[in-house]
Amino acid sequence: MSLPAGTDELIRRVLEEDLGLAGDITTLSTIAAEASGTAILEAREEGVIAGLGVSEHVFGSLDPTLRFHRVVSDGDRVRAGQPLAEVSGSLRSILSGERTALNFLGRLSGIATATRRLVDLVEGTGARVSDTRKTTPGLRALEKMAVRMGGGVNHRFGLYDAVLIKDNHVAAVGDVATAVRSARDAVEPSVKVEIEVDTLDQLREALEAEPDIVLLDNMTPDQLREAVAIVAGRCDIEASGGITQANIRQIAETGVDIISSGSITHSAPTLDVALELRVG
Amino acid sequence: MSLPAGTDELIRRVLEEDLGLAGDITTLSTIAAEASGTAILEAREEGVIAGLGVSEHVFGSLDPTLRFHRVVSDGDRVRAGQPLAEVSGSLRSILSGERTALNFLGRLSGIATATRRLVDLVEGTGARVSDTRKTTPGLRALEKMAVRMGGGVNHRFGLYDAVLIKDNHVAAVGDVATAVRSARDAVEPSVKVEIEVDTLDQLREALEAEPDIVLLDNMTPDQLREAVAIVAGRCDIEASGGITQANIRQIAETGVDIISSGSITHSAPTLDVALELRVG
Amino acid sequence: MSLPAGTDELIRRVLEEDLGLAGDITTLSTIAAEASGTAILEAREEGVIAGLGVSEHVFGSLDPTLRFHRVVSDGDRVRAGQPLAEVSGSLRSILSGERTALNFLGRLSGIATATRRLVDLVEGTGARVSDTRKTTPGLRALEKMAVRMGGGVNHRFGLYDAVLIKDNHVAAVGDVATAVRSARDAVEPSVKVEIEVDTLDQLREALEAEPDIVLLDNMTPDQLREAVAIVAGRCDIEASGGITQANIRQIAETGVDIISSGSITHSAPTLDVALELRVG
Amino acid sequence: MSLPAGTDELIRRVLEEDLGLAGDITTLSTIAAEASGTAILEAREEGVIAGLGVSEHVFGSLDPTLRFHRVVSDGDRVRAGQPLAEVSGSLRSILSGERTALNFLGRLSGIATATRRLVDLVEGTGARVSDTRKTTPGLRALEKMAVRMGGGVNHRFGLYDAVLIKDNHVAAVGDVATAVRSARDAVEPSVKVEIEVDTLDQLREALEAEPDIVLLDNMTPDQLREAVAIVAGRCDIEASGGITQANIRQIAETGVDIISSGSITHSAPTLDVALELRVG
Amino acid sequence: MSLPAGTDELIRRVLEEDLGLAGDITTLSTIAAEASGTAILEAREEGVIAGLGVSEHVFGSLDPTLRFHRVVSDGDRVRAGQPLAEVSGSLRSILSGERTALNFLGRLSGIATATRRLVDLVEGTGARVSDTRKTTPGLRALEKMAVRMGGGVNHRFGLYDAVLIKDNHVAAVGDVATAVRSARDAVEPSVKVEIEVDTLDQLREALEAEPDIVLLDNMTPDQLREAVAIVAGRCDIEASGGITQANIRQIAETGVDIISSGSITHSAPTLDVALELRVG
Amino acid sequence: MSLPAGTDELIRRVLEEDLGLAGDITTLSTIAAEASGTAILEAREEGVIAGLGVSEHVFGSLDPTLRFHRVVSDGDRVRAGQPLAEVSGSLRSILSGERTALNFLGRLSGIATATRRLVDLVEGTGARVSDTRKTTPGLRALEKMAVRMGGGVNHRFGLYDAVLIKDNHVAAVGDVATAVRSARDAVEPSVKVEIEVDTLDQLREALEAEPDIVLLDNMTPDQLREAVAIVAGRCDIEASGGITQANIRQIAETGVDIISSGSITHSAPTLDVALELRVG
Repeated sequence: MSLPAGTDELIRRVLEEDLGLAGDITTLSTIAAEASGTAILEAREEGVIAGLGVSEHVFGSLDPTLRFHRVVSDGDRVRAGQPLAEVSGSLRSILSGERTALNFLGRLSGIATATRRLVDLVEGTGARVSDTRKTTPGLRALEKMAVRMGGGVNHRFGLYDAVLIKDNHVAAVGDVATAVRSARDAVEPSVKVEIEVDTLDQLREALEAEPDIVLLDNMTPDQLREAVAIVAGRCDIEASGGITQANIRQIAETGVDIISSGSITHSAPTLDVALELRVG
Repeated sequence: MSLPAGTDELIRRVLEEDLGLAGDITTLSTIAAEASGTAILEAREEGVIAGLGVSEHVFGSLDPTLRFHRVVSDGDRVRAGQPLAEVSGSLRSILSGERTALNFLGRLSGIATATRRLVDLVEGTGARVSDTRKTTPGLRALEKMAVRMGGGVNHRFGLYDAVLIKDNHVAAVGDVATAVRSARDAVEPSVKVEIEVDTLDQLREALEAEPDIVLLDNMTPDQLREAVAIVAGRCDIEASGGITQANIRQIAETGVDIISSGSITHSAPTLDVALELRVG
Repeated sequence: MSLPAGTDELIRRVLEEDLGLAGDITTLSTIAAEASGTAILEAREEGVIAGLGVSEHVFGSLDPTLRFHRVVSDGDRVRAGQPLAEVSGSLRSILSGERTALNFLGRLSGIATATRRLVDLVEGTGARVSDTRKTTPGLRALEKMAVRMGGGVNHRFGLYDAVLIKDNHVAAVGDVATAVRSARDAVEPSVKVEIEVDTLDQLREALEAEPDIVLLDNMTPDQLREAVAIVAGRCDIEASGGITQANIRQIAETGVDIISSGSITHSAPTLDVALELRVG
Repeated sequence: MSLPAGTDELIRRVLEEDLGLAGDITTLSTIAAEASGTAILEAREEGVIAGLGVSEHVFGSLDPTLRFHRVVSDGDRVRAGQPLAEVSGSLRSILSGERTALNFLGRLSGIATATRRLVDLVEGTGARVSDTRKTTPGLRALEKMAVRMGGGVNHRFGLYDAVLIKDNHVAAVGDVATAVRSARDAVEPSVKVEIEVDTLDQLREALEAEPDIVLLDNMTPDQLREAVAIVAGRCDIEASGGITQANIRQIAETGVDIISSGSITHSAPTLDVALELRVG
Repeated sequence: MSLPAGTDELIRRVLEEDLGLAGDITTLSTIAAEASGTAILEAREEGVIAGLGVSEHVFGSLDPTLRFHRVVSDGDRVRAGQPLAEVSGSLRSILSGERTALNFLGRLSGIATATRRLVDLVEGTGARVSDTRKTTPGLRALEKMAVRMGGGVNHRFGLYDAVLIKDNHVAAVGDVATAVRSARDAVEPSVKVEIEVDTLDQLREALEAEPDIVLLDNMTPDQLREAVAIVAGRCDIEASGGITQANIRQIAETGVDIISSGSITHSAPTLDVALELRVG
Repeated sequence: MSLPAGTDELIRRVLEEDLGLAGDITTLSTIAAEASGTAILEAREEGVIAGLGVSEHVFGSLDPTLRFHRVVSDGDRVRAGQPLAEVSGSLRSILSGERTALNFLGRLSGIATATRRLVDLVEGTGARVSDTRKTTPGLRALEKMAVRMGGGVNHRFGLYDAVLIKDNHVAAVGDVATAVRSARDAVEPSVKVEIEVDTLDQLREALEAEPDIVLLDNMTPDQLREAVAIVAGRCDIEASGGITQANIRQIAETGVDIISSGSITHSAPTLDVALELRVG
């Protein structure tokens, strides 16, 4: 139950992507069917781990007789060379699952690591680091899980679970207050309404319609500080646009509640992880 | 026919990932059903484009009445601000498909751009830049297409279509020559056999078994040059491990045939692309 | 784009459920392949219509050459005998799709009709009628669409898009205020937190933790009125449990914001709809 | 093996419908991962139970470590307050599966209960109560199982497994006898041919073509009695149309073999079932 | 509507089986994207054609812009060299779909041809030639369609649409009459009950329970003739077991109604069909 | 891991094909739920066995409590009457899975048997027997496995894993040497390039472009012998077209490396296998 619904299906498809109809022809032609061994998943660089559960399912889906033992937990910070988990059993199964397991683990850990870096930078301020919908097609639930493992929080999961009114929507409706009100009237009571504003004037206007959250797009720290004063606790404030390691602390200190970053999912480099074999 | 088999299914799943059961509640509550308009997909930074066909299918899958007109082609080099394509029709459909289309386009163009950067660096040498199996789970065929758009070549698509004997396989068999021979005996005649070697001694030993390709892992330029001399045209040579923009030219000049890089798929930052609306 | 994501897949499965491998053997053996005609979908009793779009897709999925023309719209109130839509083309296709189209249309219109009955009863009060998650397995998105067609609003679509803390969750945490706070801390900022309370004391305690909505379960009108006074506009109030046509007006007049009913989805009788053929 | 083929797939989809990508965010944020307990599925009103096997699979599909112990069996008549089954293990898993399990159990038990009510009313006559194809889209196999649990028999499962010639088919062919004969000639020998007739004249004509079953649509008890005399045992007789609790006994006493009712599937109210938790 | 439900899905899977992720790399590397042409599907040997509709869908599924024109119809008898259909449009698309289209067409025509051979041999007797459930896994609906194209009739489509009591079932129940009766009591009224008997004594005993069909397994023509006399028109008679071109006429002349053969589906050699290209 | 990826999915679909929604109505109505027994899978004629693993999965997929014990192994040569495997447990489950298991086992063993017959005929020559892409739609991976069980080798699995340039491709490019070169330039380095030639002149021309394999189509033994001399070890040689038991030895003795045959997959008669029950 700890993995998102649909993960088993996803893993099955990804294994088929790598195995095709003919299977792992290298392993089948060089490794004896009865050979067994133990392999260590290990980090090759420092970072935060996410996706051990997925890796475990990859091996288990390929061969239910493999045994998987975790040495660290998802969310743990590890150093280069640190063992993450141990998988043992049929050598053929271990080698055939290796790349798929590592591809998941490297990508998700890369996201957790990038997130943690931002989270650490805002420590002590009230701001939380959030992801966006700029995720890899097909991997959103897992990538959002990785963001949580890195200490971040999740923005909406899709177009369906929260309202976020952007400039294009406002343009179609006419003004921000009307946009907030028509959204509020149309959606289910359990849904929050957020609106993106580009100027402080727009912010003031939007506040009249009592949104649950305002998103301040690409504002300077000075503008953000003024916005915080204007809002005065009436709703949550999210800052977005151009967030980097260099500027996130300054933004967090303006008093905003949430700082959202697309790059922690769409541009995080993979974390270097590898599988070391010990033939048994 | 121009997209890999299964792409329509993938797009359908990814749209469901974003739309869920309730759909795009922001757009449904702020944009009139009959509103129409035109949007421009444009690049926000310089790069090489890949994935326009996928984006077109995203919009077409959501709403077959949308019209999509390409301004540039996949593989084209573009500068910041350049329009890539135009999509027109129902405003609701355009806005609901925006993020999914951009997520594909940004990622694939990021890969094409990273590939092209390496390809340009080896220009004039005989070396070709190749990808690996270190791709995003579920997106391998599209990412390998993006590599081709960037001027690279594809390594094997999966475990099923070529033999690549690595150190773990060699360890199980005993020595490299035996490993090549047992693979050759077991696999279908139409399959090539490649073997990874770490030392020049191993290389000499492997050559006795007449592999189709040898992969030289993490060798210095000097070692690579010596390896090229040893092989003397008897098979193709692939260099791999630790390839960077800084060292790829030097490696290419050693005379190797293929230089493979995992980072062009697993760590390429997304290319910044956006959708600008012109309400009609 | 007007139907929930996944509806085409659902329709395909439901058609296969009825057609099996052998197809409509009655029609194939009695109707000539080239016979064509026109059929009228009509209401056999008074009600509110929902699901015409689904019916159109059923026929279109079976045979894209069929033409479907709507006479009324989803959400319209109709009387017995009123034509709803006209479908024309291959007689075989019309007859083979008839039952599947009617099963969708009857069920969804039944839900819209049951909802509209409650909505009419609370007219003029500030209360809105909401559904629950007590929907038919596999049909949630369509049934929630039917509720909207009947003038109701949707409660959360699933366990994923809003927090609703029930007695079992409270029991595990200890008290209602702690439950609200731990939910608030854990979930994404865009998610609303609702808590179910059974007594006015619990209500007072819950309010300290500032929930977005309180659900008052099985309270009498007098209790509800007192609850409205206690809440004093600090959050939305939902009344639930034992809602009937007999008592809903009285409940609405207490000043609650939302009245939720499971029976509009789980026990609404089908609306009697039929297909009348005019052989052409 | 006791559940229809495809049930596991259906359950998986329905769980995904409720859990989405983010999962049960209420439970995840208020219940500790290691908390365990026991819950009792119980009836809140009198009825006949169907769907315990499905409920068991719902919980097992969500979390294979949950234990499920049945107290009663499918087909049993229960009274209000009676425990039906016990599920124990991870509290999170129990709570996340609760609504999906209850939605199946309530609907299927509602159908079994409605069926049993009619079956009891015809007891002692030779008539059997049958369902129709007016089932919930996607749930036909389970609903037909529930009808059997209520003591009813199943009519054809789809358009593929029996011929039922209706007025529209007759109109296309010309007359009932020709319709029966052309169906008989066209279909496989193992398939029964049934024809719907509206008048006694049509009945006499149809009998000449030796159908396996005749369906008498919307006839009065007097007409039915005369029809039984005319048929004189030459084929089975099914009465259909407007069957209610008030008139079914009278219809059964005319001597017909089968009485089919759409309302036992399309309009049966859910049986009120609930899950009571005992934290362990 | 003319192809069995699920055929589109099947074709999609089979195309993916042949194209994989990388697609038709031969055609992509040797044929220009804009090249077009016309190809003729033709028979290389005499036979009966089945599967043209499937072939048309294969090409249409790969590339909706291809045009397909049938020269003959499914069920037609053709001679060697006869053109069957013409497909024109993108050369790449034609070549990439060729093998998949031919694999379907050759197999289904092989079955139609084998069936027609038996059907011709029994011409003028009252016997009909039937298939069995010994079909290729995954292709049952199409193979049964091919049997009909060859002039045969279909036996049951699966375990679900007719009762066929075999020796193993009889052994478990005790005797044939009881077996027929318990089946009759348990199944829906629209289902026929058939029983397999091995001796004339068993036949007499079975007839007491009034089965709809009796299957006489592996009997000699003399035994079959006696069986026909015993049955005396009270039910249909099916002869099965060891049917060959050499003995089928003799069996048909005994007066049995149906002769079923597994070999027309499980061992029919493919019909030699080919695609001839005329580059345009 | 020993079965091709996707086999579980395939088995699930094939079981649904046979069981439909209603299931095995014969067994359900004649065999008690608690009855158990043991059945022997046995060969009814001499041959080579393939598909025991698939059969085991069929039974296991239907009922995980069945026990399956192999008496022989895939690839073993068996005589008529020889027991192949034993399956024991629920009688209902055994009978419901019987036909599906036998349909797989008979077809795959038929292919292994036909392959072995050719393989034995070329024993002692250097030639290997290969399959083609003329396989049953949907079963390619399993049929290619069966070919290996019969001692054959596999040709390419699909259009994606090797280049095979045929006359149609050559016609489009102009000449064989250019065709080989343009393929070589376009495809990934790990892919082999094979070209079909019809004359010895074409062969000489093709060799200039250094293909990995040449396919000699429909040549006489004399032509083949001359071709072997011309090639002189520079690449592998495959002979194809019109291979029969009568001529394969003669062809093998010409010195070709591979002899490929479509008939071992597309026209192999099923091997007669049966399930004998011993009620326990």
